[in-house]
Amino acid sequence: MTPPLIAAAVLSLAQILDASPATDWRLLDPEDTVYLELPSGRVVIELASAYSPKAAAAVRGLVRDGYFDGSAVIRSQDNYVVQWARAEDDPKARAMVSKKVAPEFSRAMDAKLPFTRLAYPDTYAPEVGFSGGFPVARDPKKKQTWLVHCYGSVGVGRDNSADSGNGSELYAVIGQSPRGLDRNITLVGRVVQGIEKLSVIPRGPGPMGFYEKPAEWTPIRSVKLAADVPPAQRLNLEALKTESATFKTVIESRANRKEEWFHDPVGRIGVCNVPLPVRLKP
Amino acid sequence: MTPPLIAAAVLSLAQILDASPATDWRLLDPEDTVYLELPSGRVVIELASAYSPKAAAAVRGLVRDGYFDGSAVIRSQDNYVVQWARAEDDPKARAMVSKKVAPEFSRAMDAKLPFTRLAYPDTYAPEVGFSGGFPVARDPKKKQTWLVHCYGSVGVGRDNSADSGNGSELYAVIGQSPRGLDRNITLVGRVVQGIEKLSVIPRGPGPMGFYEKPAEWTPIRSVKLAADVPPAQRLNLEALKTESATFKTVIESRANRKEEWFHDPVGRIGVCNVPLPVRLKP
Repeated sequence: MTPPLIAAAVLSLAQILDASPATDWRLLDPEDTVYLELPSGRVVIELASAYSPKAAAAVRGLVRDGYFDGSAVIRSQDNYVVQWARAEDDPKARAMVSKKVAPEFSRAMDAKLPFTRLAYPDTYAPEVGFSGGFPVARDPKKKQTWLVHCYGSVGVGRDNSADSGNGSELYAVIGQSPRGLDRNITLVGRVVQGIEKLSVIPRGPGPMGFYEKPAEWTPIRSVKLAADVPPAQRLNLEALKTESATFKTVIESRANRKEEWFHDPVGRIGVCNVPLPVRLKP
Repeated sequence: MTPPLIAAAVLSLAQILDASPATDWRLLDPEDTVYLELPSGRVVIELASAYSPKAAAAVRGLVRDGYFDGSAVIRSQDNYVVQWARAEDDPKARAMVSKKVAPEFSRAMDAKLPFTRLAYPDTYAPEVGFSGGFPVARDPKKKQTWLVHCYGSVGVGRDNSADSGNGSELYAVIGQSPRGLDRNITLVGRVVQGIEKLSVIPRGPGPMGFYEKPAEWTPIRSVKLAADVPPAQRLNLEALKTESATFKTVIESRANRKEEWFHDPVGRIGVCNVPLPVRLKP
């Protein structure tokens, strides 16, 4: 037997994923998968039904009603969020103003919710980690857990009252994780493919990145559930299970950088710095 | 006397800055201020001479030599960095390949360096805070301090060897703070105005966001030091001193959100979430 050329191979992320068993992956549930169609292509969002069932149901319902077909990106604030909605004076939008949905800023911890904990300290929460494909935090004293704001997180815009976020106005994070929003607004999912189609949208010139005229909006042709799209138009996406051994290897390899380029192996990683791999099913 | 309508006014960031004394601001040093001219306008970078004097001198020298005039953004990787350089096969770029500059991944702590400490835990470093306008970290046991990677941070690209970062290839962070790069690469400054001109540049389709053909590059017309530009073309920018009482108020107000919109006042803030105000001198 010839010894390997490199005694202890340093595996890249791609190599770790290539070596993973098929059972470490889960197909996205078509009822939790949203296709947002921009002029530049498709953005895919996974809804976090386990953490925000009411918000996910509200968004699912609006999507099924065609509410977002003909909506637009109305806000792009640098290092913060892009936001999409129907025009304020649109009759469908006006009909939504009085619609309330109970907030889901956090939820009770539950032994049935998986939790892969990150061993490193976090600025904002006693514990952080991953649950069912999403970055989350927990407070064991208060027995509460919540989705955290990372790049690509999708949330439900709201006014001052907690129940005013009804799913008709959504945002995606396109900058430094705005963790101060955690537990202040309902997160409903995350972009699993195509976030770069949102993040390059020109910033709005108005306050908070809102555009000043509709001509500046980026139109959204349609928003559909994967379940409602003909099979030929679906993307057969699967996500690495955040409870899998492969995901633990991903965390370990990204927290401890053994590649030649790194002079300091770091030894740490933040909850918003761990990649959450999604791929077309091979 | 009529009592005020709101007993304890909650000041916005703009109101805090408007109320600040002129002495809490410092004019940017024209020798540390770099104007990068894109087709979409000017990006302003402040060099961190106190932390990376060798890198700042290298960049200053290249800028004065006109090295970056006619360079281009050759890489745009989503949620990571944009990077600019001359074409690899350009004679000036080839002449730089063998040029070495000693790394400045961290430096010795020094009582002469100001430090406004953040009271909250950080994932990556024993202490974090601000020094002379830049986000920094410290390790009191090792008596080391270093610039940290936040949105807008500007660094010196390098190959595997630590001294290969000679300033001829620079990057700016356009996503979640890649703190794992801290102490692995020399940061030389930060974008103080115009980062949104870099962050919306279409992502490169190749590995690590590199473009596949020069036609995809974003051209850089010129890069100049403010000191070398006719006064009429200079921007009279001033930065809030990170050692000032006003800046401490900014931290306090951003860590403890008392606005009506916030249902949970947070009580924490991360080193990359604190705004570092820069404005045209009134």
